[in-house]
Amino acid sequence: MNAPAQIQSDDALSPAQTLWSMNADDMAAVDAIILERMHSPVGLIPDLADHLVGAGGKRLRPLLTVATARLCGYTGNAHHKLAAAVEFIHSATLLHDDVVDESDLRRGKKPANLIWGNSASILVGDFLFARAFNLMVETGSMDALGILSNAASVIAEGEVQQLAALRNIVMTEAEYMDVIKAKTAALFAAATEVSPVIAELDDDRRAALQTYGLKLGLAFQLIDDVLDYGGQQAALGKSVGDDFREGKMTLPVIRTLTRADAAEIAFWRKVIVERDQDDLDLQRAVSYVRKSGALEETVQMARRFSVEAIEALDMFEKTPLRDCLQNLAAFVVSRAS
Amino acid sequence: MNAPAQIQSDDALSPAQTLWSMNADDMAAVDAIILERMHSPVGLIPDLADHLVGAGGKRLRPLLTVATARLCGYTGNAHHKLAAAVEFIHSATLLHDDVVDESDLRRGKKPANLIWGNSASILVGDFLFARAFNLMVETGSMDALGILSNAASVIAEGEVQQLAALRNIVMTEAEYMDVIKAKTAALFAAATEVSPVIAELDDDRRAALQTYGLKLGLAFQLIDDVLDYGGQQAALGKSVGDDFREGKMTLPVIRTLTRADAAEIAFWRKVIVERDQDDLDLQRAVSYVRKSGALEETVQMARRFSVEAIEALDMFEKTPLRDCLQNLAAFVVSRAS
Repeated sequence: MNAPAQIQSDDALSPAQTLWSMNADDMAAVDAIILERMHSPVGLIPDLADHLVGAGGKRLRPLLTVATARLCGYTGNAHHKLAAAVEFIHSATLLHDDVVDESDLRRGKKPANLIWGNSASILVGDFLFARAFNLMVETGSMDALGILSNAASVIAEGEVQQLAALRNIVMTEAEYMDVIKAKTAALFAAATEVSPVIAELDDDRRAALQTYGLKLGLAFQLIDDVLDYGGQQAALGKSVGDDFREGKMTLPVIRTLTRADAAEIAFWRKVIVERDQDDLDLQRAVSYVRKSGALEETVQMARRFSVEAIEALDMFEKTPLRDCLQNLAAFVVSRAS
Repeated sequence: MNAPAQIQSDDALSPAQTLWSMNADDMAAVDAIILERMHSPVGLIPDLADHLVGAGGKRLRPLLTVATARLCGYTGNAHHKLAAAVEFIHSATLLHDDVVDESDLRRGKKPANLIWGNSASILVGDFLFARAFNLMVETGSMDALGILSNAASVIAEGEVQQLAALRNIVMTEAEYMDVIKAKTAALFAAATEVSPVIAELDDDRRAALQTYGLKLGLAFQLIDDVLDYGGQQAALGKSVGDDFREGKMTLPVIRTLTRADAAEIAFWRKVIVERDQDDLDLQRAVSYVRKSGALEETVQMARRFSVEAIEALDMFEKTPLRDCLQNLAAFVVSRAS
């Protein structure tokens, strides 16, 4: 997912890049819609939107929509607008997340709110969210609208739940799973479920693609949470420690806490509950998390979801496209090992 | 609109209160939907939403939807969900506005962001916005969805334009009109335009009700902007001066500036552009605005829009309901005189 965009030999292409090249025309159409619809005579809107959604984003979620639409044999063009709508919903969420998280990096760039201010990020997020609905209305598919509008409220609910659980050291694994299912997996699931709907396939295929997106999204978020503690072997990269600094409870920490001794619990209470952290605390947190085996366990859980995503596609005819969607599910997990 | 909710003799009821009593069953149904749909197992959501949208709100916009649906002879029940959706969109906007404006009072209460924090207001706003779309989808009316989703993106665009114009002392009257049309009148217009759509009336009636809402919304916002400088005669009330403190350019100030001398311009530059204000500056601003005649002119403009709103309903049969909707348009302006 985070593979560089530069041209590489075919062997070195990630499944996400291969999937993109297999759907290049569709993705070009999606890009054109995104660029056209983030335009506004109010100049601040395209400036800020371009920073986030302009050319160069990885567009994983819209890619899933166009690729699964193709998998479903869909021959219309509603998938382009739905894919753009999915990206707009995702972008709106990111803009608001940056304000909420007070993060200082987003996709390797300074987040929009640190350039244009929190107010601009909030309001442009609202604009992109509304534009997403404009696009969906234009497709004329009430079922797709139902799926995506439902995802939008589930995402917001998950974000609020995550906010309420911030610095809550007794957050349970069940609560964590609820949060990641809502804040991340719901949009993946909606992005893939709309495809069988517009292609008018049967309910089994609709359920299968919903499952594929949902499980892929769960695996994706679990691995993201592993990478925030540096992955299983990797050196501490620049993006490590964001969750830790925000006092966000994730599975690696929840699992680590279940086997922590009194001294460790005191440490976690200090850094998460009291948010009293110095430079060495992140290193200490990473070492506790690694030592506990929680990273391996989280990766294993992600792998199980990945397998479920892969199996969900088995009912579709074996084609290079299906293979690539299945490879993508495996690749998501491989990022962390 | 701001009339107290206590029981009064019929003579003393404002047109908004009369309109409510003429549509009491519909409004009870709307209230029930609002209370049901702002619920969530994530406790922070109902807590915060109840503070803003719970029982006791004036519900002007949903009232317009149910009353105009009735005017159109609509006999179904989609208007209840659409009215609740309108209120949710409005509430989401208010939650985000409070964060953007840094205001310290909202509907006479402490705003939600000062109680639960900016993050909670942003995310619960997103939730209510998404829930609005869930409700619209349930009505099955793609046309209503198109009208309201278009209004939502116009509102966000207007909010961004207003933000970009903050402290811009050379903002033109045309720019100001664009902003209030977008941020306020668009939702009034959508709230009334959906009624002829779900009632399947002809395009003339649809255009008439769109005009009614639009002009009513323009008059409403102009009068709000007059009241922020204390109205034409009223003593300085508690809600006076919000726009001034935020450096928001409104028509009373724009008009005042057109006839200001050098000393006055220097004053406005100091308080609006540099936002350098002390306690006496608001009184001085109010006296400049009053002296210039800008308040009377703004009220006159509001009155013209009010007349256009009233005339737009002339094509409907004269009934007590139509009279009341027309009285409401007149009443909106009477608040300031």
